[in-house]
Amino acid sequence: MSNYEEIMKLALERGFYFPSCEIYADAPAGFWEYGPTGVGLKNKFIDLWRRELVRRDGMLEIDGCQIMSKSVFVASGHLDNFTDPIIKCSNCKSTFRADRYIAERTGENISERSDDLNMDATIKKYDLRCPNCNGTFEKVNRFNMMFGLGIGPNADPAYLRPETCQTIFVDFGRVFKTMRGKLPLGIAQIGKSFRNEISPRQSLLRLREFYQAEIEVFCNPYKLDDLQQFQDVKDTVLNLYDGTSNVEVTADEGLTKSLLPNKLVAYYLCLLNEFYAKTGIDMKRTRFRRLSDDEKAFYSSIGFDFEVETSVGWLELVACNYRSDYDLRRHALTSKHNLEVIDPSDNSKVLPHVFELSMGIDRSIYAILEHSYYEDYTHDDRIVLGLKPYLAPISIGVLPLMRKDGIGEKAKEIYSALKREFESFYDDSGSIGRRYRRLEEIGVPFVVTADKTTMEDDTVTVRSRDSMQQERVKVSALVQFFRNALSTEPKIG
Amino acid sequence: MSNYEEIMKLALERGFYFPSCEIYADAPAGFWEYGPTGVGLKNKFIDLWRRELVRRDGMLEIDGCQIMSKSVFVASGHLDNFTDPIIKCSNCKSTFRADRYIAERTGENISERSDDLNMDATIKKYDLRCPNCNGTFEKVNRFNMMFGLGIGPNADPAYLRPETCQTIFVDFGRVFKTMRGKLPLGIAQIGKSFRNEISPRQSLLRLREFYQAEIEVFCNPYKLDDLQQFQDVKDTVLNLYDGTSNVEVTADEGLTKSLLPNKLVAYYLCLLNEFYAKTGIDMKRTRFRRLSDDEKAFYSSIGFDFEVETSVGWLELVACNYRSDYDLRRHALTSKHNLEVIDPSDNSKVLPHVFELSMGIDRSIYAILEHSYYEDYTHDDRIVLGLKPYLAPISIGVLPLMRKDGIGEKAKEIYSALKREFESFYDDSGSIGRRYRRLEEIGVPFVVTADKTTMEDDTVTVRSRDSMQQERVKVSALVQFFRNALSTEPKIG
Repeated sequence: MSNYEEIMKLALERGFYFPSCEIYADAPAGFWEYGPTGVGLKNKFIDLWRRELVRRDGMLEIDGCQIMSKSVFVASGHLDNFTDPIIKCSNCKSTFRADRYIAERTGENISERSDDLNMDATIKKYDLRCPNCNGTFEKVNRFNMMFGLGIGPNADPAYLRPETCQTIFVDFGRVFKTMRGKLPLGIAQIGKSFRNEISPRQSLLRLREFYQAEIEVFCNPYKLDDLQQFQDVKDTVLNLYDGTSNVEVTADEGLTKSLLPNKLVAYYLCLLNEFYAKTGIDMKRTRFRRLSDDEKAFYSSIGFDFEVETSVGWLELVACNYRSDYDLRRHALTSKHNLEVIDPSDNSKVLPHVFELSMGIDRSIYAILEHSYYEDYTHDDRIVLGLKPYLAPISIGVLPLMRKDGIGEKAKEIYSALKREFESFYDDSGSIGRRYRRLEEIGVPFVVTADKTTMEDDTVTVRSRDSMQQERVKVSALVQFFRNALSTEPKIG
Repeated sequence: MSNYEEIMKLALERGFYFPSCEIYADAPAGFWEYGPTGVGLKNKFIDLWRRELVRRDGMLEIDGCQIMSKSVFVASGHLDNFTDPIIKCSNCKSTFRADRYIAERTGENISERSDDLNMDATIKKYDLRCPNCNGTFEKVNRFNMMFGLGIGPNADPAYLRPETCQTIFVDFGRVFKTMRGKLPLGIAQIGKSFRNEISPRQSLLRLREFYQAEIEVFCNPYKLDDLQQFQDVKDTVLNLYDGTSNVEVTADEGLTKSLLPNKLVAYYLCLLNEFYAKTGIDMKRTRFRRLSDDEKAFYSSIGFDFEVETSVGWLELVACNYRSDYDLRRHALTSKHNLEVIDPSDNSKVLPHVFELSMGIDRSIYAILEHSYYEDYTHDDRIVLGLKPYLAPISIGVLPLMRKDGIGEKAKEIYSALKREFESFYDDSGSIGRRYRRLEEIGVPFVVTADKTTMEDDTVTVRSRDSMQQERVKVSALVQFFRNALSTEPKIG
């Protein structure tokens, strides 16, 4: 089991991620960059998401703007409700997030949705002071977490979206119509969202600028149990958690026991479960946590968080919310556009309800790294990032055992033949053992080595990262070999 | 030859792109969304860019934040220089971009970098007035095109990046070191940039929020002609334009005739040329235009624009700038970090120079659409989007010739077997001819049709969009068939 510090060290030293603008003293907290290995892992994670969720279910993917007009957030409720409680020191003006500060100092569990007067009273009761100057605090205030900006020379107000899904709601009418949609219809999007957090922290875990992969399933609320494709997943085992205990049930049992509200919700939780199983995350350390009423966001009527256990506690990777018709109703009302559609199965007019799978990409990347990293003390204390081959940032290392006798040139030739189709890396510097170690540490699943035998019979060794076994493969068969070995369902043997 | 209006109609009606927040009256101009077909095309364009530029050349790809600290833009010069001249009506306060307004009204060709006093004089000379109220204009002013925003409760100043490359410059030190870089080294990035344009227009052609694919090649300025891999591309034919005439030369001839400054620049222009040839853009209607001194950006010493001819004129798709050591020098000075690196070939210390390929993705998508679209009057006046198969948003249509006799089920089965690996679309509504037409219009290169024969011998027809020829293929051979047909180098026959 690895921990946060080990992953941070790996991330910083091996190009997975690092702080944005780090050479500048005024670099704001909560902004992180993906380096080359991080980009590779993230891109392949997104490919897998497209394969196992979007294409599998026949969803439509869109990609909208991050800057959106003010009306959008009047309608969505974010302008009024998307706030954090803050306290400011009346002396030095240092500012803190009220609920967190109170919880840290008193141990009292205060929700961010708690009443402001209640927080004021708690601060008074414990005589909480500014940690910097011991000053007293002003009354609790509300800080809107959206970044505002001005468009054009007149600075017309607009905002960076705090969740990608607002794009999907606003675009729903046109997309449904032009793509000849039928309910239920999933519309998906990958993109950046922005939240002006008071206290961002823990690198990828609480960012001000972050990647979401959101899926909004538009459905007929009268037909949530009318879903043929549920049959394909009904035996999927889900780990459901109600806040006190876990139960492992098949989706079918979950419905029978009323642990899951309907087939539509059950079906998409199953797809999500099967997707994460393919990321290499240890599914025994995951759960769907049913949210209690005071934990749910203001738009949600049923909620499950998909959580994964890490060294820093249980992390929410996906918020699964039944948002009902909240968003479409509000946008229809505010924009005065009718967003109802026809359900052809009975010709009824319906304002679709929405079930959402809101995935945090950055946190998912972190969880994959932590669950994949291990130290192998049986072999030179090697550090291995045991990523699934199809998720590894670099798929193939190409090494000449030595540079002389034309072996270096031969290895370069092989590298050239592979590199356009596969992420490949050529390395001829240092001992072969050290070169293997460097590649294992960033998760390269296969290493091709050219040696003297290569010059005689045109075969190379292909070494597997996990087993450290080698096999000889004809150079002419390498492309086929790797297409299979790097697929999500490789044929073994 | 198609035109802007036809492409706009296609884009709006078939899900390629459409205005952001369009249901709201306060939707700001200059923001457009990609619909499902647009996302498909854009993703495949990016895949091709990764294949033919990033992986081919062994570049490193990073993905950084869009919000960057103020110091970055003090150093880069954007805070001082990234401005447009504007004029404001002294009566109704309407605002216009000065250089464009003068050019439109007077025909005088005024550069945005022209002197403000010069523009004031021209406005006076022609007595230019506000088109809305006939008021006089205030003096020319400078409007910074960066979007500013405030971070945290104290609203610390930061900006949305106006070009993605600043991320690459700021991250250069860490990336070069942790990835064991060697000069020349290309660092690449795909992401959004933001410019608060005074008059955005023409949908994807002048946006306020847009996608760039930028490549910064860090190089030793004393070794620009010391590039072995130039041999691989020296016979590539480039169309060079100097503002008055075109010459077609091989890269090698371009160097001999001093039309190209050095092998490094020549090599990357060749890679770019070969990349665009694979996008399906008609290369006879492209050129590299060498920029004159007063056209170049403030950081550039040699510049070529890669331009493509469209119905709305010659469009700049890629700015190729030799930025010298301008950026690294400024960032080193402002941040007080040494950004020099060692060139191991002679152990010299060098502050790298930069040659940049700054690609506009949105404009490229537009150009591909316009160059691919045609009306085929010989066959029912069909409209065809003749995209390269590997760029088509949907690769395979799956249609049952009729639904009865189990043919519908069989077609659905085939669709299920293909859809995770290939973007596929199932359609069983309407006549087979109409279904073909709908798929041709969004560029689907292959259509699988199940018919009565399918039920007898397990073969289907595969119809090619361009030739409209059909061939029968065994269902069990379809995956292999399409892997080949959709690759960038399919084996024919």
